[in-house]
Amino acid sequence: MKKRIALLPGDGIGPEVMAGCQKVLEAIAERFNHEFLFEEGKIGGGAIDAEGTPLPEQTVALCEKSDAILLGAVGGPKWDDAPSHLRPEKGLLGIRKKMGLFANLRPVSTVKSLIPASPLKEEVVSNVDLLIVRELTGGIYFGQPSGREGDKVVDTLEYTKQEIERIVRKGFELASVRRGKLTSVDKANVLESSKVWRETVNRIAPEFPDVEVEHQLVDSAAMQLIRYPEQFDVIVTENLFGDILSDEASMLTGSLGMLPSASLRSDGFGMYEPVHGSAPDIAGKGIANPLAMIMSAAMMLRYTFNLFEEAQAIEVAVQHTLEEGYHTKDLVIENGQELGTEGIIEKVIEQINE
Amino acid sequence: MKKRIALLPGDGIGPEVMAGCQKVLEAIAERFNHEFLFEEGKIGGGAIDAEGTPLPEQTVALCEKSDAILLGAVGGPKWDDAPSHLRPEKGLLGIRKKMGLFANLRPVSTVKSLIPASPLKEEVVSNVDLLIVRELTGGIYFGQPSGREGDKVVDTLEYTKQEIERIVRKGFELASVRRGKLTSVDKANVLESSKVWRETVNRIAPEFPDVEVEHQLVDSAAMQLIRYPEQFDVIVTENLFGDILSDEASMLTGSLGMLPSASLRSDGFGMYEPVHGSAPDIAGKGIANPLAMIMSAAMMLRYTFNLFEEAQAIEVAVQHTLEEGYHTKDLVIENGQELGTEGIIEKVIEQINE
Ligand SMILES: CC(C)[C@H](C(=O)O)[C@@H](O)C(=O)O
Ligand SMILES: CC(C)[C@H](C(=O)O)[C@@H](O)C(=O)O
Repeated sequence: MKKRIALLPGDGIGPEVMAGCQKVLEAIAERFNHEFLFEEGKIGGGAIDAEGTPLPEQTVALCEKSDAILLGAVGGPKWDDAPSHLRPEKGLLGIRKKMGLFANLRPVSTVKSLIPASPLKEEVVSNVDLLIVRELTGGIYFGQPSGREGDKVVDTLEYTKQEIERIVRKGFELASVRRGKLTSVDKANVLESSKVWRETVNRIAPEFPDVEVEHQLVDSAAMQLIRYPEQFDVIVTENLFGDILSDEASMLTGSLGMLPSASLRSDGFGMYEPVHGSAPDIAGKGIANPLAMIMSAAMMLRYTFNLFEEAQAIEVAVQHTLEEGYHTKDLVIENGQELGTEGIIEKVIEQINE
Repeated sequence: MKKRIALLPGDGIGPEVMAGCQKVLEAIAERFNHEFLFEEGKIGGGAIDAEGTPLPEQTVALCEKSDAILLGAVGGPKWDDAPSHLRPEKGLLGIRKKMGLFANLRPVSTVKSLIPASPLKEEVVSNVDLLIVRELTGGIYFGQPSGREGDKVVDTLEYTKQEIERIVRKGFELASVRRGKLTSVDKANVLESSKVWRETVNRIAPEFPDVEVEHQLVDSAAMQLIRYPEQFDVIVTENLFGDILSDEASMLTGSLGMLPSASLRSDGFGMYEPVHGSAPDIAGKGIANPLAMIMSAAMMLRYTFNLFEEAQAIEVAVQHTLEEGYHTKDLVIENGQELGTEGIIEKVIEQINE
């Protein structure tokens, strides 16, 4: 198979973890006889410095002619005080919207060797395996008006029925190929948009008779994620709730440095990025953990290229690497051996080649 | 001191915990020589059944002539499918707005004997002592428009500068009499209202040179609350973020059944209620935990009546009761003795009278 992959390394540790990820994909291409064509584009702070905008047109053009996008991370203190339109995250929001990446998937599952690093008790998190499906191109992130007028400031949470329907349907589809449980999260006791959301879930439910549906209010879901996270299979929710809950969920299993994400369009095209940020404090030191970036590449192979065996080869390689006790500085494995970014990449590639 | 206290027991376990709370306040009145005049009003589901509205005018009138309000809890499955304006929580939102209760205070602190019941590890929560200050009468809860038009649905997050200023100032004031640290939570990388929020915090900060100020994004705060909750002293945030984060925080220390809240007006008038809900599944069984309601009454004595010694008498009584191993069914104390609602109230009153 021949695929064009746009690489947007971004800021901070982005370039380091992307370099490692590319090597892993090259090992996969070699072993499974594919051709991956990589081309790099600028986004975020680096793009602001070089081109005066967080999302240059060439980057959009590159993404449009590619089969999938890999993104590292954007942002850093250097651009923190810049005006809105010159902030790195505008690049991220822009590419999501421009490419129509409406479905953000964030799986969180327990990695046995990392449980000791969780702030939660082992018995609470030992079997967590959940997937947050977050709407990514609507809601209060993009609604108008958003601005000041005299003494007032407003933001607008806006959805069309179609936008709600397609993400809810995505949630059902994913639940039906997992454990068959969908938890829809809203604030239907306060928000009109949440009422429409809940009605939509209830209207679509009969199309998926094998999926058990449950509604939770967002405040309650924020509690339940800590109290009893194993109750969740797929959680589907709107943009801002998904932002908050997925970050909360990323803390559960002590494996933040391992968590991948996918942002998908209806036709399967997607952008893949680690959940962690650009970690400017450790950038350039050669100690960044590339595993979340690599796991994101595995999601790309599975969701956009339908290369299931190849995706699994990466996931198994990562798992074995950890089981053998190899880890980066951010992970805690008892009696393990700490390696740098390049060191752990080598171990993963050895596993792939075995 | 002579005080009129409006009692709004509400639904589910509300009436049971309110009855216990009233007894405790009577014991305080006796011991410290005060006169508390109690008068009951309807709110929530019970008010819908009796009067056809979740917030009858008599209830508002009662609150207006009182010196403070104690609220039990509202809601239950019976009213879950009712149209918006006939839902119990409309009573709660209505009374907050009508009485101008803009500052919601939710303290969460570790109770040593309850740590084993926390889903978090002991070393993570053994010294939690934080206070969430949530804006309660603005934001997306009340902004207009909120409704459907054709295929679209919108909600509006709206604040005036004055609304942001008064809650931020409240946060600073509270931080300055606690450990001197204020964490302001917003989503300034996306929302215009959050930018105004952050500017307001930075503008007011110089008035409180002894308070250390920090900004966190709401997604990051949702992570940090689990990762390292002891970093927080006072957290100040807008209505919906406060709703989500305070419920999340309520899970930290394993003591949900103990957590009180205050909703204050600028002149010190306030409504006090437990953080837990109406728990319809255990209503009427005599097993509900009244301690959060009692701790709410202690907050009333302190914040609205300035009766510091009396407030402390309640808090110490509750603490000693738990230390002696007495607890209700929802709490877990190793080698403790389980009591019903009335049983634990008796123990608390014994402590007060000692
Ligand atoms: C950087 C920010 C705009 C972004 C978001 O809120 O969507 C981030 O938090 C995320 O979750 O990818
Ligand atoms: C019942 C509901 C409207 C309310 C809120 O969202 O404010 C509740 O969750 C709370 O926190 O008191």
